[in-house]
Formats: sequence, C-alpha cells, structure tokens
Amino acid sequence: MASTVRPPVSVPGVLASFTEAWSPRLIASINAEYEMKVAKLQGAFVFHAHHNTDEVFYVLSGTLTIELQDVDVDKVVLNKGDTFVVPRGVRHRPVVEEGVVEAMIIEKAGVVNTGDAVAAEHLRNDVKDARG
Amino acid sequence: MASTVRPPVSVPGVLASFTEAWSPRLIASINAEYEMKVAKLQGAFVFHAHHNTDEVFYVLSGTLTIELQDVDVDKVVLNKGDTFVVPRGVRHRPVVEEGVVEAMIIEKAGVVNTGDAVAAEHLRNDVKDARG
Repeated sequence: MASTVRPPVSVPGVLASFTEAWSPRLIASINAEYEMKVAKLQGAFVFHAHHNTDEVFYVLSGTLTIELQDVDVDKVVLNKGDTFVVPRGVRHRPVVEEGVVEAMIIEKAGVVNTGDAVAAEHLRNDVKDARG
Repeated sequence: MASTVRPPVSVPGVLASFTEAWSPRLIASINAEYEMKVAKLQGAFVFHAHHNTDEVFYVLSGTLTIELQDVDVDKVVLNKGDTFVVPRGVRHRPVVEEGVVEAMIIEKAGVVNTGDAVAAEHLRNDVKDARG
C-alpha cells in the first residue's frame, strides 16, 4: 500500500489564521527531531537560553531585534528576509519595537520557547499544529 | 572571553549573489546536524530519495512541482509561501515548468542533493557557504 504524505502548508494561510503573539504554529516536522514553526512576535519576550539546541530565526515581515548576553555583540537587528542562528546556550531576548513581526523558527522538537527562564507569565509552550 | 555569533544572513542578498540552478547555498547550520540552504531550481531534476532524512522545501518565489513515487499522491504543486516535507525514503523529483524557482531547503547536514540517484550529470553536491 502506498504510504501517505502530508499536504503542503501555506505559510501565509497559517499566519492569517491567528493573531496571538508568542504562540508558535507547527508547519513542518523534520525526522521527528526538528520542527519548523511560524510565530507572531510583539513587544519584548523574556531573556532565556536553550541549553540543548541552536535556534534559527527567519523573518517573514517586520523588524526583529534579538538582544544577546555574553557574546561579542549586544544585539542583532533582523529585517524581512534575514536569518540568524542563536547558538545553543546563548541567552537572548527577542524584542519587537514596532508593530508585529512574523517569523519562522527552526529548532529541536519539544523545546520550551522560554528555555530556562522561570517567569511564570511566559512559561507557555502552546505550539499548535497547523499542518493539514 | 565572550563567544562569537555569526552575523545575520540576508536571504535576498544571497539569492542575488548567484544564478546557477541546483547549486545550494548554506545559510544556517543547526547544531551541526541540520542545514538550511537556499537554491535556484530550473527545469527538471532527477528522481531520487534520501534514505536517512526528511527534506523540507519552502518556496520563496515561483511555482515548484514535486513529483512523487509510491505514495498516495503523484505530485504536489507548491507556490510562493508553501512548505512541504518529502518524507525520508520517498522518491521524488523537483520540476520547474516555467522560469526559475527560489526555495529554502532544510535537511540533515551532508546530504547529497541527488540522494541515491546515479545519473553522473546530476551527481553534484557543491553546497557553498553563504554565511558571513
């Protein structure tokens, strides 16, 4: 019997389906090891680090600042079409100074988006599956 | 001493820097396990499968058809903003019927882009590092 494939996922369609900030949508799983997600970012997140994975940001719209600690630059500013890797273990804080940023995020599956931060108000990891 | 981070990479900038089809550019490495690449696709590739990794396509411009073998659909058609996962082991062939497609590809590091195909003319894996 032929096996099945999941249908394509329209990233603009997924982005049009929700408005909440910091609430990632799963758009692709890679070998059940890594996940590609899209999220809307607004305002400032919390400083945190992921001790077991790099985190890739790819900006789809808007301007995203990622503040960094204990590395050779204090921050990077990402515009539409820019990609950036936060190395594992590096404390960082995404900040959106104006409007809403739409971004693609790629990291290991099961990662808590707040990493090692303990601020209760940010301890959410409600990734929703947006695949067909 | 503070560790270093790689600077952001502009995907439009990388795409503007080359014209060759089927010649991926590395834009991000994730934990040295996975790679994010961009490529230009034109015409038809060769049927092949990757037996050890899923392969994610995300279309940045143009219309990409991915023909599939031994699964429940014969092909998928991806437009700008669409993402699709070719499951590991599934034979597939990217085909561009008109113009050039720009796509992002995410898969395990070190994958040969022709997978298990043996057509000598396609046996190239000249991924170039486009990171700063």
